[in-house]
Amino acid sequence: MDLEKYITVIEDFPKEGISFKDITSLLSDGAALKEAIKVLADPLRDKGIKYIVAPEARGFMFGSAVAYELGIGFIPIRKAGKLPRETVSYKYEKEYGEDELFMHKDAINKGDKVAIIDDLLATGGTISAVNQLLKAQGADVVSIGFLIELTGLKGEDAIDAPVYSIIKYEF
Amino acid sequence: MDLEKYITVIEDFPKEGISFKDITSLLSDGAALKEAIKVLADPLRDKGIKYIVAPEARGFMFGSAVAYELGIGFIPIRKAGKLPRETVSYKYEKEYGEDELFMHKDAINKGDKVAIIDDLLATGGTISAVNQLLKAQGADVVSIGFLIELTGLKGEDAIDAPVYSIIKYEF
Repeated sequence: MDLEKYITVIEDFPKEGISFKDITSLLSDGAALKEAIKVLADPLRDKGIKYIVAPEARGFMFGSAVAYELGIGFIPIRKAGKLPRETVSYKYEKEYGEDELFMHKDAINKGDKVAIIDDLLATGGTISAVNQLLKAQGADVVSIGFLIELTGLKGEDAIDAPVYSIIKYEF
Repeated sequence: MDLEKYITVIEDFPKEGISFKDITSLLSDGAALKEAIKVLADPLRDKGIKYIVAPEARGFMFGSAVAYELGIGFIPIRKAGKLPRETVSYKYEKEYGEDELFMHKDAINKGDKVAIIDDLLATGGTISAVNQLLKAQGADVVSIGFLIELTGLKGEDAIDAPVYSIIKYEF
């Protein structure tokens, strides 16, 4: 199945010059959603991975379904004020200022094998932060999978872990 | 499987008097996540449902996996500024002011059967808004499923559609 044809490319959203990759047209097609989750899950089988980790909010749509397909646990990475127990966090620079991502402190044990799933790899800022947050807790980040990668932005170079992606655009 | 034992109850979060139901301890257990998605999906089988609809952000964790299990499409309901194509929206009152939820205008065709999935039913404000937004587009909201229901808050009475839930607390 050619999953790329289920992505709608919207020019100049959210601002001029950005070619936005709209995943809602893929999500709303049952067969395309099924295929997308399977191909995201396939490289993660039989590797002893304990958890799928994904950042809010679009990451949740793919991360939990991949965890479900693999029969393993799911750990959400959240913005401030959303997690009720003791958290650890990681601050990082975004285009317009600083952001901070949170995880429950007891979510990971040292040496746990995890994989990160997200919808799209652009410059890699957010996922690099998730990766650093996990590594600081002692996690072994085995693999990071994206539905879409914008290869021209070289996000892969910003991430200190093995990366794969299903649909590739230059920008 | 007794799913309730995988929920962590945190008193006085996010503020005094609230008994917060933490779902992250269920999500992180592969077997509990598998069971939760299956029991959420079971009442929706063989009903001709075309889409699972869920509001951001926690709804995404359950909604997309239920859609995946059923082999049907998933439609995310989002906050302002997240959807790139033409949207329809619904404004509603929250405890501290007004909120507004958005959906792509072309996401639903008149008469489409849909089910809504979310993590928790409290007073029902958000899900009632999702339900109204869908109905205004001509959707047939067949069923609304929650992992958790706080029965004492009578959210079910606020929602004009059939509701089911898996784990029940009074408050």
